[in-house]
Parts: sequence; C-alpha cells; structure tokens
Amino acid sequence: MTIRMFDLCGADPERRFSPFCWRTRLALAHKDLDVETVPWKFTDREAIESLGAQKVPTILDGEKMVTDSWAIAEYLEETYPDRPTLFPNGKGEVNFIRWWSEAVMTVGVASLILKDVYDHLDPVDQPYFRESREKRFGRTLEEVQSGRDKGVKAFRQALTPLRVTLQHQQWVAGSSPGFADHMCAGPFLWARATSPFRLLEADDSLNDWLNRILDSYGGVARSAPGYD
Amino acid sequence: MTIRMFDLCGADPERRFSPFCWRTRLALAHKDLDVETVPWKFTDREAIESLGAQKVPTILDGEKMVTDSWAIAEYLEETYPDRPTLFPNGKGEVNFIRWWSEAVMTVGVASLILKDVYDHLDPVDQPYFRESREKRFGRTLEEVQSGRDKGVKAFRQALTPLRVTLQHQQWVAGSSPGFADHMCAGPFLWARATSPFRLLEADDSLNDWLNRILDSYGGVARSAPGYD
Repeated sequence: MTIRMFDLCGADPERRFSPFCWRTRLALAHKDLDVETVPWKFTDREAIESLGAQKVPTILDGEKMVTDSWAIAEYLEETYPDRPTLFPNGKGEVNFIRWWSEAVMTVGVASLILKDVYDHLDPVDQPYFRESREKRFGRTLEEVQSGRDKGVKAFRQALTPLRVTLQHQQWVAGSSPGFADHMCAGPFLWARATSPFRLLEADDSLNDWLNRILDSYGGVARSAPGYD
Repeated sequence: MTIRMFDLCGADPERRFSPFCWRTRLALAHKDLDVETVPWKFTDREAIESLGAQKVPTILDGEKMVTDSWAIAEYLEETYPDRPTLFPNGKGEVNFIRWWSEAVMTVGVASLILKDVYDHLDPVDQPYFRESREKRFGRTLEEVQSGRDKGVKAFRQALTPLRVTLQHQQWVAGSSPGFADHMCAGPFLWARATSPFRLLEADDSLNDWLNRILDSYGGVARSAPGYD
C-alpha cells in the first residue's frame, strides 16, 4: 500500500524544502516503501489538523497517521522490521545526533538561508513565516541572513564532528547509512532546495558524503528541484 | 591479572586529570577489571617510550601494550567480551560522539581551565606544557583562560545536544552507560581535578548525569582528588 506523506512545498509545489520532511523522505526511501507525497503549505492547516496533526512531516499509512520525523522513523522501523533498518546500531547514541543536528545544523543553516526560504514560499505563506521566524530569532529575516558571509565560517567549524566522523567511516551510522545520516542530511537538503548560498566550500570532504546521500535511493534527493 | 595503566598526574601524584586517561579509567571500571594506575608525568617519556607508546593513557595487560583511549576501549571490548559492554549499540554513531567530545568539549574546556591545569603540574612538567599549549592556542596560557567568564556561556550553549539527550535518556549510550558516556565525562573530570571554575551552573540538568558518573563503579571518579 502506498504511504501518503504531507510534504512542505514552496510557491512551486515541486520544491520540497523542510529539513524534517527530508528526513522522512529519505527514511521512506531507505525502507523502499512506496510513497505519494502531498504538497503542503504552512497555511494548509485544515488538511493535517483534520487528521490530528499540527505540522509536517505527517504520514498516512492506510488509516494510521504518524506525525513528527523521529516518531515516523520509529513507526517505520517497528512496522517494517524486515526492510533495511533505519537504526543499524539501535537508538542509544542516535538520540545525541538527533539533538546535535537540530541545535547545531538546523539552527545554523536557518541563520544562513532564512530570507532565501521566504523568497521561495507561496505568497499566502509568507506573512506567517515572517512573523513566526522573526519572533523566534528576535530579528528580521533580512537581519538574520545579513551576516552570513561571516557566519558560515562558524557554521563550517561547527560541522567538525560530522566531518571527522565521515573521514573515518562512510556513513554517520557506520558502514551503512541510517536515520542518523538522514537527520544530518536534512538541513543540507533544505538549503539546496531554497538557496544558492554555498554551505560548504568546494573542497570540503563533507561533499563526498553529501553526494552519496544525494545519489542514494535512486537519487530521490538529487532529482528534486534545488541549487546544485 | 591486574592491568597497569599509565595515568597523567600533577605535582600531587594522586591528582589525575587527563580527560583521555579518565575515559580509560572509567572504561576499565565499567569492565570491572583490576587496575593498578601508575602516576605519569609529561616528562616521563622514557617510561612509556620503552613500551612503544608516545602518550597516555597507555595500558599493559600482561605483556600486551595498548595506547590511546579509543584503541584501549576497542581492545577491552574485544578481549573481555563477557564483561559489561562499552558499546551497547555497536560503534557506528559512537564515533560521532568521539569527535564531538574532542572538538567541542576538550577544546572548549581547555580554553576555560588551561592555566589552572598548569598550576597543578609538577614544576618539571610546566615548561613543556606551557610551550606546547601556547603553540597550539597561539596565545599565552593566561590569555587563553582570561576570557572565561564570557567563554563559559558559549561552552554551556554548545553542550545543548548533550543536555537535551540526557533529558530524554539516562545515559549518552541509552538506557545503560557506555564508552560514549565516558568520553563525554572525561573533560568534566579533567576540570574537576584541576580547577575551581564552575563549568556548569548549579541548576544545569547535566549535573544529574555527571553525578551519576561520579558515583558509578564504586565512586572511582568521586573519590579522586578534585574540586567539588
């Protein structure tokens, strides 16, 4: 049965950018599950609230609704245990990577591309996005992004643990990819979908891993609209 | 058979402070192995070079020499598989925590306590320590440490992934402690041994985990000389 996934989109419904939706998209692809993505905008509240969800990613697997990328990964692992595992080493230390990817990567990338994300939104979503994000950051979108030529250096530095790990092993999860990889890839795919700004220098060894992610699962991420 | 462990010490041979030696001390205790620690100073080159090692921690298990805290953990896990595991979830994502603990915690703590560490060294070690660390940091020990009242705020902020993880589970490794915990504890035990400076605010939830570490394994860390 095909799983339906509500997936954040921009003015172009094919432009899917949420770092959390990308986690789920990669997790579904990793499990080799059929998926039909449903383009969803911030202001499409009713479409998911009627299912009992407040935000995306949200999936419908038959009658079963699951929301939140971590909860979806756990659901997929429990429901489809015979398919490739998302947690090849259990979940113990993966939790740390979950919070690292959010505190360092999601917050870090946001500060570099927030205005670019805004520019890709459907005009109907823009007022909500501006208001909620400016409240969260305590500055205008333009101010948040204005220091990015300097800010990107600190961001690249903060990626040191990820970079060094991937100089020692092929995937964040070890010798095969897992949800730890999907969580770390999400923020990069968010930026790729919305911004020409280069998060990584061309000679950053992290590009090797990111290219492997982009080409995995039949190139589900590579073939999505974005800046290459 | 008792394992011998070369363990960095200060002017007081009972003051053991190396964050990497603490990893090994906790790992040995976790495996419930008998250990005889040998106080070692930076300038005691000959004592370990004659064994083929360049730095501590170095252990001697019978005739077998193993050096480097990560290599020692791997050795203990392979050699004593029937004792409590250091890697309850394998090593995949533990590698990430290894590099995070070094890039964020060891470097971060160093900038807060480096002069205090120096003050605890045997005078014979002080010239080597000052020269090598000042070269590494590009500043005097006094300069490195001088901004710590401000720097500690950024350090505490950088601990967010560790803090949030430990709000969701008892140990970094999950429901039971592992080498991931020992690696993250090392820098705290380094500071505890050498500096009255408070890395954490009194109400930081990380104190709960750190207290569990200090009291584990018969209180091997709690009973060591340090600032409480």
